[in-house]
Order: sequence, then C-alpha cells, then structure tokens
Amino acid sequence: MEEEGQPIRCKAAVVRKPGEPLVIEEIIVAPPMAREVRIRVLCSSICHIDLAFSNMKDLPGIFPRILGHEAAGVVESVGKDVTEVTEGDVVIPIFLPDCGECIDCKSTKSNLCTNFPFKVSPWMPRHGASRFTDSNGEIIYHFMNVSSYSEYTVVDIANVTKIDREVPPERACLLSCGIGAGVGAAWRTAGVEPGSTVAIFGMGSIGLAVAEGARLCGATKVIGVDVNPEKFEVGKKFGVTDFVHTGECMNKPVSQIIIEMTDGGADYCFECVGMASLVHEAYASCRKGWGKTIVLGLDKPGSKLSLSSSEVLHDGKTLQGNLFGGLKPKSHVPILLKRYKDKELQLDEFVTHEVEFKDINKAFDLLRNGECLRCVIWMDK
Amino acid sequence: MEEEGQPIRCKAAVVRKPGEPLVIEEIIVAPPMAREVRIRVLCSSICHIDLAFSNMKDLPGIFPRILGHEAAGVVESVGKDVTEVTEGDVVIPIFLPDCGECIDCKSTKSNLCTNFPFKVSPWMPRHGASRFTDSNGEIIYHFMNVSSYSEYTVVDIANVTKIDREVPPERACLLSCGIGAGVGAAWRTAGVEPGSTVAIFGMGSIGLAVAEGARLCGATKVIGVDVNPEKFEVGKKFGVTDFVHTGECMNKPVSQIIIEMTDGGADYCFECVGMASLVHEAYASCRKGWGKTIVLGLDKPGSKLSLSSSEVLHDGKTLQGNLFGGLKPKSHVPILLKRYKDKELQLDEFVTHEVEFKDINKAFDLLRNGECLRCVIWMDK
Repeated sequence: MEEEGQPIRCKAAVVRKPGEPLVIEEIIVAPPMAREVRIRVLCSSICHIDLAFSNMKDLPGIFPRILGHEAAGVVESVGKDVTEVTEGDVVIPIFLPDCGECIDCKSTKSNLCTNFPFKVSPWMPRHGASRFTDSNGEIIYHFMNVSSYSEYTVVDIANVTKIDREVPPERACLLSCGIGAGVGAAWRTAGVEPGSTVAIFGMGSIGLAVAEGARLCGATKVIGVDVNPEKFEVGKKFGVTDFVHTGECMNKPVSQIIIEMTDGGADYCFECVGMASLVHEAYASCRKGWGKTIVLGLDKPGSKLSLSSSEVLHDGKTLQGNLFGGLKPKSHVPILLKRYKDKELQLDEFVTHEVEFKDINKAFDLLRNGECLRCVIWMDK
Repeated sequence: MEEEGQPIRCKAAVVRKPGEPLVIEEIIVAPPMAREVRIRVLCSSICHIDLAFSNMKDLPGIFPRILGHEAAGVVESVGKDVTEVTEGDVVIPIFLPDCGECIDCKSTKSNLCTNFPFKVSPWMPRHGASRFTDSNGEIIYHFMNVSSYSEYTVVDIANVTKIDREVPPERACLLSCGIGAGVGAAWRTAGVEPGSTVAIFGMGSIGLAVAEGARLCGATKVIGVDVNPEKFEVGKKFGVTDFVHTGECMNKPVSQIIIEMTDGGADYCFECVGMASLVHEAYASCRKGWGKTIVLGLDKPGSKLSLSSSEVLHDGKTLQGNLFGGLKPKSHVPILLKRYKDKELQLDEFVTHEVEFKDINKAFDLLRNGECLRCVIWMDK
C-alpha cells in the first residue's frame, strides 16, 4: 500500500446489552495496522458460541460487541508487512491463530499458537485496542479475533487463511469453527482409520461434523447417540450408520449397548455435548487396548472429568482433548476445502437456512430454537 | 512327550496366612495339562505386588498361596499341543497372557489378550483349578499366572516367553513385570522420541525403569520428581538428568517448576506413584498441544482421576493408561532382552540384592523397608 489506509464507514450488527437483539448500525472500521488485514465480509454462519456470548452478562462477555466468527470475505486492504495475502484475495478468518513462526505453529504436532494463545478477548491480538468505533466515537469490542457480523472487519494475519476462490464462500465459512472442529477431530485428533468403528455422543452440528469426518476417513460403523431419535435421519446424511436413542436404553448403560454393537467397544468415541459425566460414558464405550475418547464438548467452568484410576490404568485407553479438532488453520483447512471441491467432503447439507444481514436476529432465533444446523447470513450485496 | 507326565515333589515358599512369613515346605506340582508348561524355576525377583498380596486379607487375597511373578526358568515338560517351547528351553513366565490367537494378540495396537483377560486369579487360566497341593493333599493357590516362589511351577503357554539362553536369568526375569512395564511405558505407550523431554513422578523401580526407557529412546531431558532427594543420585544411573525435590518446592506447584524447566511443559509425563491427585499434577506438567501423560501407578480401589473439563478440551493433551507398559510379552520382551545383550538397555543396575531361596523372607524385608530396587531370589542349585 502506497498511502495510509482510511477508515471505512459501514453497517454492523452490534450487541449493545446481554440478551438484547442485535442492532444494525453504522460503525467506523479503522484501517489495518501492521500485519493486520481489513476484510469485506461476504457471509457468516452462526454457531452456539455467538449465541452464548450474546447473552453473557459477566466476563468474558463484554458489550457493545460485534459477534460472528465463521465467515468468508475478500481482502479490502492490508497493513504493513503483510505479504501472505493481498487486496482481492478470498479469505476465511479463523478464530484460532496460526502465526507460522512459533514452535507450535512450526510443529506438525500442535495447533495451539504460542505467540498468540487463543482466548476470547475483546481486543486485537497483536497490537491490542479495537478497530471499531460507533458513530459517537465509542469503542465497540472485537470477538474471537474475527467479528464478522459487520460489512468490514479487521483481522490479524495470524487469523487469516487464504482460500481457493472457486469454493463458494457460504461453504468455506463453515469450516472456520464448529464444522471444521468436528471433521478435524475425526481426521486429525483421533486419526480415524478405514474400517474403524466410531461412537458420537450428541448429534448437534459438531457431532454430525465428526460423523462426516469419520465417513471421510473410511469408518465403517458410525454410531450416533442422542436423546432425540429424529437425529438418526439427519445423521444418515453424514455417514451415521447406527443409532442409540438414550431415552430408550432402559436400565442398560449406553456404554454396554455400544460395546455389544461393536463387539468390544468403539475404536473412537467423541463427546460432543459438553457434559463431563458423558465423557466417562464415552470412555467406558471405547475399546480396551486401543480405544480413544476425544473430548469436543465444554462443560460449564469448573466442571471436572472423573475417571476411575484402575480403569485408566488397566484398559490401555486414551483420553484426548483438542481445540478446533487439531486443525492447523492455514495448512489443514485448505485441504478440507479441496476435498469439498472434489465432492469428497459434504458441506452443503449443514446449511439448513440462509438469511439476509438485515434479518440477522432471525438466525439467532433459529439457533436458539434448535431449528437449524447452520444458518448462513449474507451481507447485503 | 511319550508318556503321561508325573507329579513332582519339590520345595516352595508358601504364604499360609496374610502377613505371616513365607514357609518353605514340600509341595506336589501336577504335570502340565494341554497347552501348559511345567518350568524349573532358576530365579525370581520380588515386586511390590508380591508384598501387597502377602498381606491382603480380603479377595483377591487368598491363602495358602505361592507368590512370585518375575522369574526365569527352564522348561521341564510340556502338556499336549504345546509346540512353541520344548524341554530345556529357557523361558520367562509373564503374568500378562499373549495367546497369539485373539484379535488383541494379533493386533499391533493392543497387549490385552481377549481370550485370557488378565486378572489376579488363584487358578490356572485355561483349564482352571490348581496344579499345587501340599503334603496333606490340600490345594495351594496360584498367583498372577506364574507362582514362581517354587522349584517347579506350571504356567499356561499364553504366559510363557522363550528367551535367548545367553541372557542371564537374573536379568531376564526383571523384564517380566515392573521393570518391563516402566521401560515399555516410555517405548511403547508413550513412544518417546529422540530429543524429547520427560518428567517422571515417583523414582521407585518403575519410575527408574521409565527413565531408562526414556534414555534408551533418546530423550534429552529426563526430570525425576520425588519426595526423597537421594533418588537423584540413583536416577542418574538410569538417565535422569534433572530433579525436582517435592519437599523443597515451597509454594510453587511442581507443574509450574516443570513447565519452567522445559520451556512450556514436558513432552511426556509419567505417574508412577499411584496417587490419583498426582495424575492431575502430571497432566498439568505436560506440554500443551502435544503433551502425553501416562498413568502407571494404581491408586486404591474406587479412587478417581479428576481433570478439569476446560483443561482437557483446550490444551490438546493426551492421557493414556496401559498395562505392562503396552508391551506384548512374546514380541516386545525379546527385543528388550536383545537390547540388554547389546549393552543398550541397562538392567544390572536394578539388582541391588540377591538372596538364596531359603532366605526369601529377607527379600520381603528388604522391599518392605525400601532398601532394594530389585532383589533376586536364587533357587537352590
């Protein structure tokens, strides 16, 4: 850039107070600082984390804030020292930083950047402060390094992944959080192998994405576990082959049913609900000798996972956590997008609704009422 | 064998009642049944499990019993359908079955035989009953599929590993339980890599064996953690490079000290004490992004491991259990014995004492008083 960037006036959906509807208002987006990128947002999807933070009265909830963290857009301008992308590139911002320079980002084993450890901060990760102000000059806070419910946003280069412009933005955006995490948990964290058996506790979007990831990796038996029997039909689209309706288990533990269905226990179990007690059930459901249990759901702060000491020692099982399914944003997400383009990975089926930006509150209602998997919010064109 | 085997009269050290000294008496050892092997024991070592079961008033404690499960011997005779070993072969009996036929024994991923799931039973695993009677014709119970504190014992072929006769029996026997488990936990369960960092909680024999295994795998920093500062000197023989004396940690958690020593956390942490709470400290000490915590110690029945839900989810760490360090008795133990023969694996240093069979109670005293690592008990020659 030859001349200093200028602020942009545009529309954004702002949450002014916890629990209140989003308000579309005019805001000012500052130009990107060094190693930052200003992005014209094309579309966003909505995830439970957006909903949770729209209602969160105490820190890390903070207001006024621009939510949105599953998005695709076009680079409008770049700050100093940005060489990785340039104006006009199609990108997806990803909440998890990938600085490319620290020991973790250089390692194939970790996706947890040391230079910018992920936290839900209201500020820009590298230079601090906010790039958003309202028409009165008051600060508006950032969200998860992305804040995509705005026509323009500023994102650190560590949080920007350039993508193939032939992938539709309303599909690419899905991989930047929940769906990516689910597919990644099967592919990267668990390393599901052809012919293996999988049990997934909780058939929400993330659980379904785990199923899709397991299908992609060649699992032959994918058991969905949910309180809602209707989830089996949905799950079948994503490779779920068998189902346990927890409401009809009578007095038999779910783990015993899964052990019987898999002749000894599933090779890989995934907890996607966020109940610490369910982690124990998942652990009990996985195969002695080599079974892995992957935790994807987050229980409320302070909750504890509890496993029996002798069970852990004697059964040779593994318990594994992960953030974003172990995906490295800049190297693994483009691989998944290519697999989508090659019609191997299914993403279309996750999008159950689309709304225009002015109707963004409808998207929140759909999610709140459990009526959608993913709702895409289109910025006005 | 052309003719039916005959019973053998010989001496054995029998525990008649919990807590009482072992009594050397004459017993009768029945001939091996199909797929069983009768072994002339050359020597045994003693492990805390022998001590624990000598005092255990309630089941699985049972009396009269012949303890001893770390041994080396010579095949005296074999039952029908035994083709794997023959009279005169040098073998080590190993408590963990390896039938070679079930899905687990055929898999490279598991060492937990499905045909004969390990439990501390008083009977023979395949045909049941006991092969030991005393001079009054009363049954004497078996222990951990081995019962080696006897001049002769009968062991199922699933529990017999043939070894290179050039390896001294008083070294080979060490690998059949605790020392093998420790070395195996570093090698097989954790998969310690050259250049990695390791922290070991508890510098008893098993912790020292983990250190030796980590050294063998090329770890460059091996941190011992113990309440007893004298353990550092002992540990140095087995590759321990650094030490945390928990008595002198002041108010700093051990995990914080280890994180500072390793610039972020150890790649691999091993809990070798058997305190559920220490598993949490080990887990906190391992590196975010890729750290593995391996559980080797067994807390009392019913004790729970507790980890925070958000810690498990966000830190990308792994918690892994194992039995016998993940070693497959018939394939991995001979590899370790070869590495001993090639002077790569150190075993000599574990043997701090040797006693004659008639003095077996001295071996129990040494262990009870914490005076030995491994004491070898020689059968009278």
